[in-house]
Amino acid sequence: KPLTIGLIPADGIGREVIPAARQVLEALPSDVMPAKLSFVDLDAGFEYFQKHGVALPTETLAALKSDCDGALFGAVSSPSHKVAGYSSPIVGLRKQMDLYANVRPVISGAAATASGEKRAIDMLIIRENTECLYIKEEELVDGADGKYAIAKRRISEFASRRAGEMAFSMALQRDAMRQQLPAAERTWAGRPKVTIVHKSNVLSVTDGLWRETVRSVYEGNPEYKARVDIEEQLVDSMVYRMFREPEAFDVVVAPNMYGDIISDGAAALVGSLGLVPSANVGDSFVVGEPVHGSAPDIAGKNIANPIAAIRSAAMLLERTGYGSAALAIYRAVDKVLATGQIKTPDLGGKSTTSEVTEAVCKQL
Amino acid sequence: KPLTIGLIPADGIGREVIPAARQVLEALPSDVMPAKLSFVDLDAGFEYFQKHGVALPTETLAALKSDCDGALFGAVSSPSHKVAGYSSPIVGLRKQMDLYANVRPVISGAAATASGEKRAIDMLIIRENTECLYIKEEELVDGADGKYAIAKRRISEFASRRAGEMAFSMALQRDAMRQQLPAAERTWAGRPKVTIVHKSNVLSVTDGLWRETVRSVYEGNPEYKARVDIEEQLVDSMVYRMFREPEAFDVVVAPNMYGDIISDGAAALVGSLGLVPSANVGDSFVVGEPVHGSAPDIAGKNIANPIAAIRSAAMLLERTGYGSAALAIYRAVDKVLATGQIKTPDLGGKSTTSEVTEAVCKQL
Ligand SMILES: CC(C)[C@H](C(=O)O)[C@@H](O)C(=O)O
Ligand SMILES: CC(C)[C@H](C(=O)O)[C@@H](O)C(=O)O
Repeated sequence: KPLTIGLIPADGIGREVIPAARQVLEALPSDVMPAKLSFVDLDAGFEYFQKHGVALPTETLAALKSDCDGALFGAVSSPSHKVAGYSSPIVGLRKQMDLYANVRPVISGAAATASGEKRAIDMLIIRENTECLYIKEEELVDGADGKYAIAKRRISEFASRRAGEMAFSMALQRDAMRQQLPAAERTWAGRPKVTIVHKSNVLSVTDGLWRETVRSVYEGNPEYKARVDIEEQLVDSMVYRMFREPEAFDVVVAPNMYGDIISDGAAALVGSLGLVPSANVGDSFVVGEPVHGSAPDIAGKNIANPIAAIRSAAMLLERTGYGSAALAIYRAVDKVLATGQIKTPDLGGKSTTSEVTEAVCKQL
Repeated sequence: KPLTIGLIPADGIGREVIPAARQVLEALPSDVMPAKLSFVDLDAGFEYFQKHGVALPTETLAALKSDCDGALFGAVSSPSHKVAGYSSPIVGLRKQMDLYANVRPVISGAAATASGEKRAIDMLIIRENTECLYIKEEELVDGADGKYAIAKRRISEFASRRAGEMAFSMALQRDAMRQQLPAAERTWAGRPKVTIVHKSNVLSVTDGLWRETVRSVYEGNPEYKARVDIEEQLVDSMVYRMFREPEAFDVVVAPNMYGDIISDGAAALVGSLGLVPSANVGDSFVVGEPVHGSAPDIAGKNIANPIAAIRSAAMLLERTGYGSAALAIYRAVDKVLATGQIKTPDLGGKSTTSEVTEAVCKQL
């Protein structure tokens, strides 16, 4: 049975890194990737909106649902002024396809912390992906003292529980994988740990519900309780601690907006946003997506770092049942990074997108 | 006319760093501090709430309003579970006293960035201090699919304009102070710059109003337009960029919650939360407040870093018209830090709170 992948480059460097990821997928040898791959090119994005008045066409959603086993999304540009009728297509995609968790692994053998020391980071951020301020229920009011606007932030038991389940099950899965490594190669020595991020000292009701629900997932599952540790961290302290002692985190679970901010911060620790992949995960579909944006300033120059997109493609394979193919890509990328020779300008090098992509393909 | 300062240590290490700040204020020689100082001890905090059922007593508010010219607030502990009737006293204080901007200078001669290089940071964060998610209008609903909760996030033209005005006027003020320094000592070479933080690609209405309003403060003032540069930064990218190139920021203005997160992140860059002061500023009152929390794990051990509180006391003096006294404190602190000998454990030293405080007093 072939594996069909929807490709949605969208804007800016999305149009360079998604083709790069495709090239790597096509270079996979058949011993690690037994299924035939096929690709479907799909539209979305702010530029598409400017031409056609819609950022996420229904055709794209229909094709994803009827023809694809998963998809890769590039990046989307942000309008520099309010544009009537525009709504972010990646936010829409997550909601429409019920991709309820955004899984963001942040890994580096030697990340420089804010204290200048090098530490090993191996952190997995699970970002709730469907609600919080991202429900986009906003209203503008003409008040007596001028205009004001209200946005609603929604936190539900249902969504918090799904995010919590994902966090604890991934913590166990990571632990199982670590046990297979020789002790010297394990970046995390102790029991798996889940850090619950919130701001319940201010948002006692919404973040209170988030925190209680995630905790109840833990309390209600004897296996989690027996094998995983939990801790809580206020979001402001989380950003602080992440930069002081990033090696202290294993799995981190956060409501949507905090997760967005934390994952960009974590990317700074590992050297570049151009390295960090993510997977938007639902029960029946997955969309790989580099954490970086559309970077209009460097778009079209063949200098964008394709690694985040390539790793996102590997995450897609992992979640669709092709673990060996995923592993082959992760290893090939690690080898290219380890040589330190072929790197794009964001990492201080002079290589092009194409050169990095070809180097990865050669390592497969 | 004497200067009367309310002291609200509140919880944890607040009870150690506020007395330390008082000690420094009392050590000011009369040539830099012409006015007599008097102090009023005031209650608030989570521990106070546990005993008396109220976190911010009306007596404290009344005393601030009738007897004090300004105040110092220590830190407040967060309940580890939802506690009925409890509401953060610092959030209440900001609202009750209409302290509409939280001014957080983040300064370091040589901060280690995420890339391990040392860079000079001299950033001023202006955090809107009265609204956003901090209005605490939350509601819990028993829905068909389980419980859910809604919090309201309020952004008004009125509050955004006040925060914007503060940002631009501080940018000019900083520029004027820099012009008095010899060129070699200026950490910022170009025109003053204000970075507007938002997330209008998702929150087009609320953050749209924020951004348009702050921009309109700029557009409407010929002096700002002639002398200050502006740029915008999405909050997630802001955290990323702050860690990659912190020297790129002069004044940063942000809605309440983003400002909270960014300032803790910036504190990580300068070595310790224990160094970063803030001032909660209104048109007629100011409350100095260290950015750090109550740190229950180290409370009562005489090892908390008093510098953030001492610098907050200097900010209080600056804003109540005692600029020379403020400068004397800033310089004394810088001298103690520059020797690198007397430092608390958060900075890698072994000194006590009292030793650091005495060292600062000696330099006055
Ligand atoms: C483009 C934007 C809407 C998006 C988000 O905030 O989720 C991006 O920052 C991300 O992290 O995928
Ligand atoms: C204690 C808490 C309510 C407070 C805030 O979020 O404002 C603190 O983090 C701060 O930055 O002063």
